[in-house]
Amino acid sequence: MINPYDDTYFMKKALQEAEEAFDKGEVPVGAIIVVKDRIIARSHNLTELLNDVTAHAEMQAITSASNFLGGKYLVGCTLYVTLEPCQMCAGALYWSQISKVVYAATDEKRGFKALGAKLHPKTKVIGGILEEEASDLMKRFFIEKRNLN
Amino acid sequence: MINPYDDTYFMKKALQEAEEAFDKGEVPVGAIIVVKDRIIARSHNLTELLNDVTAHAEMQAITSASNFLGGKYLVGCTLYVTLEPCQMCAGALYWSQISKVVYAATDEKRGFKALGAKLHPKTKVIGGILEEEASDLMKRFFIEKRNLN
Repeated sequence: MINPYDDTYFMKKALQEAEEAFDKGEVPVGAIIVVKDRIIARSHNLTELLNDVTAHAEMQAITSASNFLGGKYLVGCTLYVTLEPCQMCAGALYWSQISKVVYAATDEKRGFKALGAKLHPKTKVIGGILEEEASDLMKRFFIEKRNLN
Repeated sequence: MINPYDDTYFMKKALQEAEEAFDKGEVPVGAIIVVKDRIIARSHNLTELLNDVTAHAEMQAITSASNFLGGKYLVGCTLYVTLEPCQMCAGALYWSQISKVVYAATDEKRGFKALGAKLHPKTKVIGGILEEEASDLMKRFFIEKRNLN
């Protein structure tokens, strides 16, 4: 039997969150956290609204999932995020010991890989799921932003 | 004239925060953020109480200082923290473009330097202010924790 709940299915949900960020004028990054095919956290970037550099989608998703689970370790969980995590988010994911991280677009300048930060050795990482959709949203955001100024 | 408000003066304030964390059974790390000799944020590690790996002293201090200033960039600010920041906190400090980071004890295993993460190129970094006091508090915490179990 085909499992409809694959990485693409969940990345679409993260993309919906990124679109919400877009509509609010935030850099469009969305994230969800999943345990056993169940979404336990949804979030999108809110750094502008909250005036806070720590309000990345992933950070909010980690806090939210920890609240849901009643514990600070996310072993058994998967994070889906539309952009490769930055150093800060990779560092938070490292502490959480999350089992799997799936991202869509690569961030060649500020992604954790480019800057040298590390995920936990037990964390499985997959990149490039719905990469084009996530990149297109990002490009559209920055084009619209430039045209407004 | 001697300026009483030097790095040691402010690190003592961060150490007081670390002691508060100690008294709550948290890994004893404290942080403050200063602008022009004025403390605008005080915090200590609350990862156990909040069940949240993102609740490091520095992260809370960044959020708090941003709220105080009404903006997400901390240019002109100095962070004093009793332990070398981890990757997550270094990543957050990177985004904040904070002008100066002063830490007490080095974290040889999980510090941002050991793991390869980077602060913003414009951020000045000083380590080792009141290092012994901060290390002693940390050692005392882990000895007491072992003896309780």
